[in-house]
Amino acid sequence: MSVSDAIKARRSVRQFADGEISKENILKLLDAGRLAPSGGNRQPWRFILVNEAENIEAIKLMSPGLYGVPSALIVICSFREKGKDSENGIYPIDPVMYMDIGMAAENIMLLAVELGIATCAVRSFSQKAVQSLLELPENVSPELIITLGYKAGEVKMPSKKPLEDLVYSERWGRTYDLPRFP
Amino acid sequence: MSVSDAIKARRSVRQFADGEISKENILKLLDAGRLAPSGGNRQPWRFILVNEAENIEAIKLMSPGLYGVPSALIVICSFREKGKDSENGIYPIDPVMYMDIGMAAENIMLLAVELGIATCAVRSFSQKAVQSLLELPENVSPELIITLGYKAGEVKMPSKKPLEDLVYSERWGRTYDLPRFP
Repeated sequence: MSVSDAIKARRSVRQFADGEISKENILKLLDAGRLAPSGGNRQPWRFILVNEAENIEAIKLMSPGLYGVPSALIVICSFREKGKDSENGIYPIDPVMYMDIGMAAENIMLLAVELGIATCAVRSFSQKAVQSLLELPENVSPELIITLGYKAGEVKMPSKKPLEDLVYSERWGRTYDLPRFP
Repeated sequence: MSVSDAIKARRSVRQFADGEISKENILKLLDAGRLAPSGGNRQPWRFILVNEAENIEAIKLMSPGLYGVPSALIVICSFREKGKDSENGIYPIDPVMYMDIGMAAENIMLLAVELGIATCAVRSFSQKAVQSLLELPENVSPELIITLGYKAGEVKMPSKKPLEDLVYSERWGRTYDLPRFP
């Protein structure tokens, strides 16, 4: 599948049919996350694969934003280096880390489209509860949960702003001459 | 090009050959950013396309992390809604917005690979100076600059941590049984 088609076909899926995700595909998805770019090549992410039904259920209970029963989860965590010159001995999280994690998440979600796997990125969960359940050390925090499963039914594209409302040319407010975009 | 191949082939390119990016391709890249997922479908991004050489040069002078002379730039900005119940009348930026912007950026950069366009995501710039140059209102901030151009020579993949160092299963510290990944 082309990148262009995957970008257009990706949907946030919140109702899943039964079915296991093969280990081969899980490894491909994790590797896609690994290969994302990151500021200063810090690779400030760690991935917890949650495959067991009881652990998925436990995380669901901590996650008001996690709909449906996915087959597996990838919990993307931020990893902050420890350093003597930092506050509390751990460097703080910064905007670049969040953007890096967004890029890793999008790699995973776009490759999933190609592999026929449905996903949703979820941030609405108790970070404290998931931190505790996953036994994360203090310099590692759960930032985003990617649900993985097989979609049950079609999902419509949510309403998206047209390019005209999002794009300017050279300066704020200067219209970019947009043809009618297909 | 498959999503898998694009993820593997993407590099952060910092030396560019001359050559214009066609308007057709610029529109495709902007549309890829537009179609990224966002928390609560807020679409908290705005895109300033910078195409004129003197504006690219001006931004370069404000951006220690922007190498080479790209043909064009997409400055991805955060857009914060205004609201009476918010501090200073503008809602603050939050981690989800940064992750959303990372996802939009990765859509753009992966589609660029398919289109034969080289990119680099740059955060090392003076936000204040770019804000002023682009005449951004106070609720809009430049967050990430995506350089666009044609690569001059090959770029090696930077050293990446192996999956064994990044992935755990069910709990932190519990090894996921990884085959030798191709």
